[in-house]
Amino acid sequence: VNEFDVIRRLSGLLPPQPDEVIVPIGDDCAVVRLGDKTWAAASDMLVEGRHFKGWATPEDVGYKAVAVNASDVAAMGGTPRFVLVSGAAPDAETALGVFAGVAEACRELGVYPLGGDTTGADALAVDVAILGELEAAPVLRSGARPGHLLAVTGELGASAAGLLALEGGVEGFERLKGRHLRPRPRLRVGRAAARLGAGAMVDLSDGLASDARRICEMSGVGCMVDLDKLPISDDTLKLAARLGRDLGMLAATGGEDYELLVCAPERILGETAEAAEVPLTVVGEVTGSGEVVFRRGAGVVEDLSGWDHFA
Amino acid sequence: VNEFDVIRRLSGLLPPQPDEVIVPIGDDCAVVRLGDKTWAAASDMLVEGRHFKGWATPEDVGYKAVAVNASDVAAMGGTPRFVLVSGAAPDAETALGVFAGVAEACRELGVYPLGGDTTGADALAVDVAILGELEAAPVLRSGARPGHLLAVTGELGASAAGLLALEGGVEGFERLKGRHLRPRPRLRVGRAAARLGAGAMVDLSDGLASDARRICEMSGVGCMVDLDKLPISDDTLKLAARLGRDLGMLAATGGEDYELLVCAPERILGETAEAAEVPLTVVGEVTGSGEVVFRRGAGVVEDLSGWDHFA
Repeated sequence: VNEFDVIRRLSGLLPPQPDEVIVPIGDDCAVVRLGDKTWAAASDMLVEGRHFKGWATPEDVGYKAVAVNASDVAAMGGTPRFVLVSGAAPDAETALGVFAGVAEACRELGVYPLGGDTTGADALAVDVAILGELEAAPVLRSGARPGHLLAVTGELGASAAGLLALEGGVEGFERLKGRHLRPRPRLRVGRAAARLGAGAMVDLSDGLASDARRICEMSGVGCMVDLDKLPISDDTLKLAARLGRDLGMLAATGGEDYELLVCAPERILGETAEAAEVPLTVVGEVTGSGEVVFRRGAGVVEDLSGWDHFA
Repeated sequence: VNEFDVIRRLSGLLPPQPDEVIVPIGDDCAVVRLGDKTWAAASDMLVEGRHFKGWATPEDVGYKAVAVNASDVAAMGGTPRFVLVSGAAPDAETALGVFAGVAEACRELGVYPLGGDTTGADALAVDVAILGELEAAPVLRSGARPGHLLAVTGELGASAAGLLALEGGVEGFERLKGRHLRPRPRLRVGRAAARLGAGAMVDLSDGLASDARRICEMSGVGCMVDLDKLPISDDTLKLAARLGRDLGMLAATGGEDYELLVCAPERILGETAEAAEVPLTVVGEVTGSGEVVFRRGAGVVEDLSGWDHFA
């Protein structure tokens, strides 16, 4: 069971959808018309023991909770504007650390914290709800069409590599650890893709393998992804080699990169990369087959699986 | 440390306040102008072991998480419209139960769930962020003035009595247990008070003693509350007697009643009660002294304390 199963099983219980709701639950954000503007809304919760352990400071957790929500807004093509932050913490100093990290992310990302809640708890948990402003039509998960290319921003696998370094107590590799602890949402790319008319977009939180599958399901299409084309940095490669990890699998299934996966015609991808001054790497193409195929060398990789929150 | 300390200690770290923000953090809700409408925004988190124990079903927890947030909107004079819901649960069935309770509260209160997040965790935690629509100027905590009367809706102490029954495994007293498990936000009273121009309003989550103190602090006034005037139902009285509890203290400090405390001239209180068809009981008056005094019989009760989330 994940949030999609929850949505399906509860859909009969929900109240009628108000006229203001343009995109309901099921995308990176819901989209709602409030007054004369259009807003993207989402929430994401980080829980100790699941999303982070002792290697993350309370400041890191607060920062990341804002950043991953901003990434959801980026994936709709919006600008994050306001957050509400609820924190459950074992003591007051931890709560203050979390909110200091929240404030740091808010300053960097231009987001304003409207309020929230603070409560005691045995384990640290931080939930952020975000409102982002949309200036162009939102880019949905359901707009991928045969003929679109699949491209990703930046690099893949760095966050998963950083997590391995943190979990394993590996010295060095600070850049990779930082990618895991304090991801940077791709706001400029998201906005440019929306303005230029990209077909579909999602932020890579669960890993390319499952996020690409989700886009295909919601668009009613298939895709072919070439794992050999995934953009991977030298330090990720070096760490994977040292730990004996399969680099392609790390990049395809590691998750939490918070890069954007954009589906669009080649021309729009080029214009988006240029406008945002961020590299976009073509990793595959949308097909009409309904199948999701991951190629590597001359072969096909079977059973690339996603992330199950209750696994 | 509570959320007010957090706010004070972090205020220097926050980004500049955008023009759209009309009321920042520190009231029941923040108030923000989005497009051509004014909205109240808040979030509140419920955590297993702190806010509820095994006597609450997942459905109860989901319901209450929406209801207490709707109560924050009521305390600004608004109409709750949209929620985002994040749930951390030990297993999928528990998560589904929470969201079924959320859906039930949404249907009853006319709120639409825009989305949220589901994650695994050892302990159940539910955070709801809410957006409410304001049709009149929001009623703040800072608008109490000498000459205003203090009035409360409905009854006090019922939720605390229900909690005692739940914790003690007392049979019967289902109405009181229901008041604790599934509070009903005072939406009509809140809207009427705002439309009619009440001076100050807060929802009674921490208990009258501390919530009245907070209104006085934020308004720069004092008050006199007569504990003998608190509206208490017969079943609350009966249970308190059976358990040997001080009824006045239960009603003044029990918390979680989610009734509204309204400060306004007598005429506005009368018109509000009539418009909303809900009883409002005058329990005291605002004074210019700066002191907060709780009277009982001929004497004064000292040291009526509030709720500390980390105590």
